[in-house]
Amino acid sequence: MSVRVRAREAGLRFGSGTTGPRNSVADVPGVRVGHCTISRGSGALEEGKGPVRTGVTAILPHGGNMNTLPVKAAYFDLNGCGGLMGALQIGEFGLIDTPVMLTNTMSMGAVADATVRYMLRHNPQAGISEDTVIPIVSECDDSYLNDARGLHVSERHVVEAIEGASLDVKEGAVGAGTGMSCYDFKGGIGTSSRLVEAPGGTYAVGVLVLSNHGSREELLVEGVPVGAMLDTPNPKRVEQGSIVTVVATDAPVDPRQLGRLARRSCLGLALTGSCSHNGSGDIVVAFSTANAHDRTVKDKLRTDTLLADSDINSLFRATVDCTSEAIINSLFKAETTEGRDGHVVPALPIDETLAILRRHGRL
Amino acid sequence: MSVRVRAREAGLRFGSGTTGPRNSVADVPGVRVGHCTISRGSGALEEGKGPVRTGVTAILPHGGNMNTLPVKAAYFDLNGCGGLMGALQIGEFGLIDTPVMLTNTMSMGAVADATVRYMLRHNPQAGISEDTVIPIVSECDDSYLNDARGLHVSERHVVEAIEGASLDVKEGAVGAGTGMSCYDFKGGIGTSSRLVEAPGGTYAVGVLVLSNHGSREELLVEGVPVGAMLDTPNPKRVEQGSIVTVVATDAPVDPRQLGRLARRSCLGLALTGSCSHNGSGDIVVAFSTANAHDRTVKDKLRTDTLLADSDINSLFRATVDCTSEAIINSLFKAETTEGRDGHVVPALPIDETLAILRRHGRL
Amino acid sequence: MSVRVRAREAGLRFGSGTTGPRNSVADVPGVRVGHCTISRGSGALEEGKGPVRTGVTAILPHGGNMNTLPVKAAYFDLNGCGGLMGALQIGEFGLIDTPVMLTNTMSMGAVADATVRYMLRHNPQAGISEDTVIPIVSECDDSYLNDARGLHVSERHVVEAIEGASLDVKEGAVGAGTGMSCYDFKGGIGTSSRLVEAPGGTYAVGVLVLSNHGSREELLVEGVPVGAMLDTPNPKRVEQGSIVTVVATDAPVDPRQLGRLARRSCLGLALTGSCSHNGSGDIVVAFSTANAHDRTVKDKLRTDTLLADSDINSLFRATVDCTSEAIINSLFKAETTEGRDGHVVPALPIDETLAILRRHGRL
Amino acid sequence: MSVRVRAREAGLRFGSGTTGPRNSVADVPGVRVGHCTISRGSGALEEGKGPVRTGVTAILPHGGNMNTLPVKAAYFDLNGCGGLMGALQIGEFGLIDTPVMLTNTMSMGAVADATVRYMLRHNPQAGISEDTVIPIVSECDDSYLNDARGLHVSERHVVEAIEGASLDVKEGAVGAGTGMSCYDFKGGIGTSSRLVEAPGGTYAVGVLVLSNHGSREELLVEGVPVGAMLDTPNPKRVEQGSIVTVVATDAPVDPRQLGRLARRSCLGLALTGSCSHNGSGDIVVAFSTANAHDRTVKDKLRTDTLLADSDINSLFRATVDCTSEAIINSLFKAETTEGRDGHVVPALPIDETLAILRRHGRL
Repeated sequence: MSVRVRAREAGLRFGSGTTGPRNSVADVPGVRVGHCTISRGSGALEEGKGPVRTGVTAILPHGGNMNTLPVKAAYFDLNGCGGLMGALQIGEFGLIDTPVMLTNTMSMGAVADATVRYMLRHNPQAGISEDTVIPIVSECDDSYLNDARGLHVSERHVVEAIEGASLDVKEGAVGAGTGMSCYDFKGGIGTSSRLVEAPGGTYAVGVLVLSNHGSREELLVEGVPVGAMLDTPNPKRVEQGSIVTVVATDAPVDPRQLGRLARRSCLGLALTGSCSHNGSGDIVVAFSTANAHDRTVKDKLRTDTLLADSDINSLFRATVDCTSEAIINSLFKAETTEGRDGHVVPALPIDETLAILRRHGRL
Repeated sequence: MSVRVRAREAGLRFGSGTTGPRNSVADVPGVRVGHCTISRGSGALEEGKGPVRTGVTAILPHGGNMNTLPVKAAYFDLNGCGGLMGALQIGEFGLIDTPVMLTNTMSMGAVADATVRYMLRHNPQAGISEDTVIPIVSECDDSYLNDARGLHVSERHVVEAIEGASLDVKEGAVGAGTGMSCYDFKGGIGTSSRLVEAPGGTYAVGVLVLSNHGSREELLVEGVPVGAMLDTPNPKRVEQGSIVTVVATDAPVDPRQLGRLARRSCLGLALTGSCSHNGSGDIVVAFSTANAHDRTVKDKLRTDTLLADSDINSLFRATVDCTSEAIINSLFKAETTEGRDGHVVPALPIDETLAILRRHGRL
Repeated sequence: MSVRVRAREAGLRFGSGTTGPRNSVADVPGVRVGHCTISRGSGALEEGKGPVRTGVTAILPHGGNMNTLPVKAAYFDLNGCGGLMGALQIGEFGLIDTPVMLTNTMSMGAVADATVRYMLRHNPQAGISEDTVIPIVSECDDSYLNDARGLHVSERHVVEAIEGASLDVKEGAVGAGTGMSCYDFKGGIGTSSRLVEAPGGTYAVGVLVLSNHGSREELLVEGVPVGAMLDTPNPKRVEQGSIVTVVATDAPVDPRQLGRLARRSCLGLALTGSCSHNGSGDIVVAFSTANAHDRTVKDKLRTDTLLADSDINSLFRATVDCTSEAIINSLFKAETTEGRDGHVVPALPIDETLAILRRHGRL
Repeated sequence: MSVRVRAREAGLRFGSGTTGPRNSVADVPGVRVGHCTISRGSGALEEGKGPVRTGVTAILPHGGNMNTLPVKAAYFDLNGCGGLMGALQIGEFGLIDTPVMLTNTMSMGAVADATVRYMLRHNPQAGISEDTVIPIVSECDDSYLNDARGLHVSERHVVEAIEGASLDVKEGAVGAGTGMSCYDFKGGIGTSSRLVEAPGGTYAVGVLVLSNHGSREELLVEGVPVGAMLDTPNPKRVEQGSIVTVVATDAPVDPRQLGRLARRSCLGLALTGSCSHNGSGDIVVAFSTANAHDRTVKDKLRTDTLLADSDINSLFRATVDCTSEAIINSLFKAETTEGRDGHVVPALPIDETLAILRRHGRL
């Protein structure tokens, strides 16, 4: 078995930009990520019993109370075959006021419920003298490996993901990525970051993906059609699609501009070969930790300091490159996983991939 | 106490159109509505114990399996301060494939989870060889009367709403409407319908609202500012806003055209006085039972028979008028309700309302 | 013939808000409006010769150079059966950088061309070392009265409208409104304003409409179905639809929030009876003169001072009420107009309208 | 100088699909394209006199009268820094009813006016007893080479483009592409097609681009960063951006589905290296010649035969691949062009490009 290195450790570059120190979404100051991996059982599907290959991932924009200090946000769905609870509020107010929660499709309700409970515990007046809570929850479908009908995600998994959030972002078959597949190889969580110069200083752009999309023959790595060239045979899973991408930055951009970043993220997805299949929920949530909206301040004008659009191209480039690298990282880091009914999703063969890239002068 | 009659029984008309036999959304052939009303306790709020003033309402587009026979749909959010789980799929495919579920804001997760479980029971291959399920769930905030933090909606309430669906649509403080307020009076569920002539025959347009929006001083009834003229004092609740509107028709219109109906529904809302407050989730889901999408048919072209846009004005008019009438019905039918902490939302005083209308030559 | 007074002079009120001193869009500091009315000939249509009943209206957000100092903007189309040149740029950047030009449908190209020429004269580096220009042009269809095929609008009319802009906003059958009809009566230009209190001070909200929509039987005035009650018979014109609404404010709101105002404007339209016919281009452009975007400042962060969404309701109310009043003003001020082929669009009979309102206790 | 071959003639492939016989948008039955190239003068800019490097391109969906037989359509703007006259009508009705006209930015008005005149000549009742016309016009900015301020496009150029439309689609520096640049090389018009199998038969997907976007260092050809690797120095033009893409098909897809194709086109753009710069108007118009909308049929239901979404992936793939190939074709076919003030945009050096591809194992 190949050692599962990150793409950059193997020499891949994804553009000429500079990564942050962790090359992860946690390079955006304040951002932390927590995973709860739920994996148990093997063999034939026994509904409600497993095998279980699923989980929860929480992205926390900052360490404070999201309900009192929401951050500016936007979303874009290249293909809306998926769920994004909270989408309308993001669209209307350009804010997110809970952690961004990722899980499997049919556990969205459970995760929403648990996230509400978590938020209520930390906001004793929510739903009494203050507003109620609609959490941000998105999903991919892991039912090729997971006993999805068993609905194995419960409140404690959500709490574990949120409370375990840290700067150390694990990749591959972890958290919500536990049962996901990408270009017919094992996918899941991947992340990357770039540092960009713009008026006001140096900003971080970080991307985290939950990858579960695509067919093997489409896979491009650094522009080379690696999926079509690999010798290793692998099973073709039934198309279940989807990739959820979270773009984070501390650059001072507003919801309109974050929507522009969200769209660019799809260009990075394209560079890995996707044509955004019919059944793929290709959803991007973008947020900025700058100009956070303090709800405890009332009856006052707000002052937002913002990057001009004419200075935004470096953020666009970073978003494209980070998205590509995060997707490839999800493939490089995920281990071969066996799930229900003998379904096996193999890890991307790294050595062979690198050999192909070398043959094509890209390493 | 006034007898709670429907607006039309009291002589109001809302345009010159003809209603269906029930003057309800159930005049659209196949459509049924079920409520589960959850009301218990009184006195001071004791979190988790009540008082409980909430519920669940299910709108079923047809009597078959929604997962195998989705219907054409669209949504529009005049103001996105609210939740609509499933929104992205409606937007992408123009279909809904579960009942439309309404509840209180923070119970959306629980209702989504329970609706998934319901759908799984009726679709044994969903999540195995067939696609997973994302339910359509929307909400208003009943926390002025209800122990919203208690999260009192559970799976059995959802099942009761779905399985109890019938042609007899109860209005007022029932189902999801149990704890809702409208223009500072007791609101909740209201419905109305129109029959319209267009190429191909006579079609029904039906509207059901979950009303929870507005301030008393805005309320218009048949164009008369009744809210500002009523003598009865009433408490001003904290703004919590929102109205969810479901527009149903058997007219053969596609998702693009349904989106046009959804927009018109907001004009009917305007006629009752709303300016769509900042904190109001003003969401419309529209569906047509015509040209339902049979998922069991594969690898074939589909044939849709559709109304031309040039013949659609009568549907627009019906949608506007039904929405106005449904909102006023929700006020006419809802009884005074006492909830947590001595919060009382009075019923609209019907006699005084009618007296005002008479004085203004509108009755 | 009735004297053509404004609605408010006749005692109508449209909500309880306070108007600005001019009760016009020009109450927003800096905003000016210019009309060029093109009216000549009578009798049978002779293509290219007339009769001509058309014109151009220019709304200038401020007295400076729009190209170097664009203002924040948004648009919303309740029904997109119409043209808005420049729409994509408004959507992407949230800015408008030319005057807002209104004319008849098929003269949009001529007006766009002439506006480009005007902007080039005032910006000698545009298209050389600076960006090119895409003007903001919208339209309604005046072909019931006008020799629309004659394409009678030319560059000098555009220049006259722009250069003649003033604080004195003429209403009725002037400028782009010369040949327009509204609810089967003579319509055209109408305007209104409100002053609202919000954090930071008193702000003006002003609306200007180019009204050309609706059928007589729909017309509501102050909630009373005046159109259906008027005795005077009038010819039913062929449905040509459309209303373009410009919402201006000096309140510090950003493009996202301006989009929210634009949506509310449609609620004011609804209050005059419209159900937004299939063939109606119901388009709203909203701009704020606050936080104007100085393009000569480069490579710097921008600081925008903004109203919080939680303080925006008074702007919503003002937008709704101004839109209603502006539409009714367009009817009150427009004179009976005879156009091509004996087509006559009568003025709204004001005395009879007022009598109806009195009978219904609304005056 | 290299011989200007098409990319495929040089051995490039852009996916594994099968092209139509012409490998152009004209492989979609009925579609024709006409160019009017306007090129004269040289030397220093003399406003109004030149040098002129601009033109007009017309895409005709079918050979009939577009006003009486509109085709289903949609648009998507990845980045709205550009103009698309007619956008709102496409969005509302899902139809286009004039040829799709492309030109330089500031000539949009002139082209719109001329297209209206053309349509009026062929529709003698338009604007009398029938609806008026809003043409579909889009643009890129050729002012780096062209005397854009001179506004050199006039009615006869528009007529020449429309009336000269043929099945033989010229590429490179022709028509609207005369003065355009792409990745700092000479760009302009490019086209490509694919034949796809789906229920109902074999369908053509064709793409035509007007390429004017990107910076040299971004350029990817078949995934190889050719722009960064080329030795030939070339001048960096001021960023003026933009690419307009027209996607045509005879597959029976409706406006919602065409919007899905339009989004996929952006993934093909991404594969050539674009991150959709801030100043780039990246606009896609997609139409289907199937289920054309016969306006002479009134008061009847329509029957549309449609591909199911579950059968649409082959169209997605084709759209992505065609867009990439069309962009590279625009580079391969365009000759070095000198314009105003000594500005020269060099042709892409084909021999060197092919050498790089060979070195990287892609040829």
